[in-house]
Amino acid sequence: MAKKPKLLSDLFHDTLKDIYFAENKILKALPKMEKAAQSKDLKAAFAKHEKETRGHVKRLQEVFRIIGKPARAKTCDAILGITDEGAEIMTDYKGMPALDAGLVAAAQAVEHYEMSRYGTLRTWAEELGMPDAASLLETTLEEERATDMALTALAESVVNVSAEQDL
Amino acid sequence: MAKKPKLLSDLFHDTLKDIYFAENKILKALPKMEKAAQSKDLKAAFAKHEKETRGHVKRLQEVFRIIGKPARAKTCDAILGITDEGAEIMTDYKGMPALDAGLVAAAQAVEHYEMSRYGTLRTWAEELGMPDAASLLETTLEEERATDMALTALAESVVNVSAEQDL
Repeated sequence: MAKKPKLLSDLFHDTLKDIYFAENKILKALPKMEKAAQSKDLKAAFAKHEKETRGHVKRLQEVFRIIGKPARAKTCDAILGITDEGAEIMTDYKGMPALDAGLVAAAQAVEHYEMSRYGTLRTWAEELGMPDAASLLETTLEEERATDMALTALAESVVNVSAEQDL
Repeated sequence: MAKKPKLLSDLFHDTLKDIYFAENKILKALPKMEKAAQSKDLKAAFAKHEKETRGHVKRLQEVFRIIGKPARAKTCDAILGITDEGAEIMTDYKGMPALDAGLVAAAQAVEHYEMSRYGTLRTWAEELGMPDAASLLETTLEEERATDMALTALAESVVNVSAEQDL
């Protein structure tokens, strides 16, 4: 028996499960990053993004509803690797001047992974004729971009000021 | 004995080793993606990026030289996770209409990881007063951005045209 052909709609569903796993993993990582951060502004940025991430999870559940599938996660090796690197920074740089710079970098790696996935999913939703799903994905994409830009500003202003000084 | 404080220059060096590992891993992945791609344009895009990636490796070696350290890689869990997902697409979607769309998405996840790392390293090089290193990193960052944009164009035009049809 020939295999059922895997179409763009299957790829969309697979990738949706992948980012659903990733968002839930990020929800667990953010409070740890908030706790680890030394700068008040960085702590606040992580707390704000945790709140936003809860909204991203809800939007993904809405997209699952649109395609008529249950909201289920599929292990995403990429986010596991990216968050493992963040955890390594928290261990290796604990109490060190460069810790916050490392946390910002780890968070930006996460944001970029998400931006890539949401950009892809948004494009596919358009191709598949699902404007409502595309709009939900675009809204989250914009929030991830804004978070990434806010982190860049933090990296350039607050965080690195003391990172090269042994306090 | 107190631990030696880890400064931004240490973080810069650690992250340089991480992206050096990632670029070398990508150099091995690209010929496989080129071989797997169905669209001629996508094959050409992967071949072009392989050539560029060799230049990125050389630029990184130049940055290692600037900081007076040997060019050494450090296992990057993030790129391993990201390329594992790409390998999964190549297996799961082999011969399927949506294969190329999946390959573009996998490549864009790689590009976004690199953009995040190069953006971070460029900013740190500036903070550390290394304009030549910052300039080398910026040049690669621009190439990664251009590759990502070229992939978006491919995803929107060539790749998805047939991805929802069982050919």
